[in-house]
Amino acid sequence: MAQKLRIVILESGLELVPEQIRRHPQVVRTAKRYGLKPGEMILDKSLHYNAMFELPQKWKRGRPDILHVSLLNILDSPLAEEGLVEVYFQSFDGRIFQVDHTTRLPKNYERFKGLMAQLLREGRVPPRGDPLIWEVARGLGEFLSDGKGLILLWERGRDARLEWVVARSIYSGMMLGLGGFPRGDFKKSTLRKAREAYKVMGGRPLKAWTLAGRIVWVGEWILGVG
Amino acid sequence: MAQKLRIVILESGLELVPEQIRRHPQVVRTAKRYGLKPGEMILDKSLHYNAMFELPQKWKRGRPDILHVSLLNILDSPLAEEGLVEVYFQSFDGRIFQVDHTTRLPKNYERFKGLMAQLLREGRVPPRGDPLIWEVARGLGEFLSDGKGLILLWERGRDARLEWVVARSIYSGMMLGLGGFPRGDFKKSTLRKAREAYKVMGGRPLKAWTLAGRIVWVGEWILGVG
Repeated sequence: MAQKLRIVILESGLELVPEQIRRHPQVVRTAKRYGLKPGEMILDKSLHYNAMFELPQKWKRGRPDILHVSLLNILDSPLAEEGLVEVYFQSFDGRIFQVDHTTRLPKNYERFKGLMAQLLREGRVPPRGDPLIWEVARGLGEFLSDGKGLILLWERGRDARLEWVVARSIYSGMMLGLGGFPRGDFKKSTLRKAREAYKVMGGRPLKAWTLAGRIVWVGEWILGVG
Repeated sequence: MAQKLRIVILESGLELVPEQIRRHPQVVRTAKRYGLKPGEMILDKSLHYNAMFELPQKWKRGRPDILHVSLLNILDSPLAEEGLVEVYFQSFDGRIFQVDHTTRLPKNYERFKGLMAQLLREGRVPPRGDPLIWEVARGLGEFLSDGKGLILLWERGRDARLEWVVARSIYSGMMLGLGGFPRGDFKKSTLRKAREAYKVMGGRPLKAWTLAGRIVWVGEWILGVG
């Protein structure tokens, strides 16, 4: 198998509006404005801030924008163009999805959310024909069960240079995982599944999309693309 | 003056809905949905596609999303954190705006468009107190009139490595300009104002946000940040 960069964006703030707040007035109102049923709508903090007040772990939820910009940064790259990157992400409920590297993701945020709503309901998009994004595992444990291993970028991991970590991921075949949430830490169950964890760039709290873009670029440099 | 990276995103697809289509049914309908008057709304191809049919140069217009993601990629960086980047962009009407490097840009696309609508009307945001984004020139000619010079990243420029071009911009003090439009070429009036123009990464048609993120990273490497 050719050497590739394999990235997974973990614990992203992507989910449908959860059952418990579907009757909240703010949810009902915004769903109506978009012509959707509450349960067909992606939870979005900028629309549902008040409704989310009582949700557990709310600081990690309702942030599909982070996933959107991160995926745009990964897919619009010479590395993706050359087919040398494998891209996965995890939704808030724990499922793992693969994104075909040729996917032309909607640049528009509303359309992206529409596509993600369809993906979370159907498990794949488009619903017929060759899928561009599809569910590959019900959880991180199942995803890693073939023994491929996971290297985590983690603010409390061992100090390392990003170049070194990306090279290690590519040459070892271990997936490179980064957090797709705005703040807070990985779940313990995620940390336990990582074989190695590194802090890069001196532990600066970079946004997921910034880190994703930089990982791809280092990957191009290591694999001689671009 | 300390050495800094100076970036300007040129000819971005950012403007208020122009007068000539403010009575188009699609514009009236979408404005109503957002509770705005048509002239207070940012032109957005994903909302106003049909209404834009007769607009001249429509392939360059109604793409505030490109500017949004490009600015997010620039501002969320160690370089911006250290105050070593100066960021400017040009709206479709030709004006140049500066973005304070400490600006926490709205991550949400709708909020970003709201802020940009206010900026285009008022010439600055916020309207009172120290501005975070403000108009610095009515056009590119005025912007460059102090003799600072412009280096353009252009698909038909001379072949060069991005690292070399960024270093040249930093050490010469010339602004580094990139296109903020989805396709088509720079205006002749823009090309004429550039002292130098380079094609990077073998002329691959990279998105503005990808290029912006990479420029910043190269800047960090050159200036020893991160």
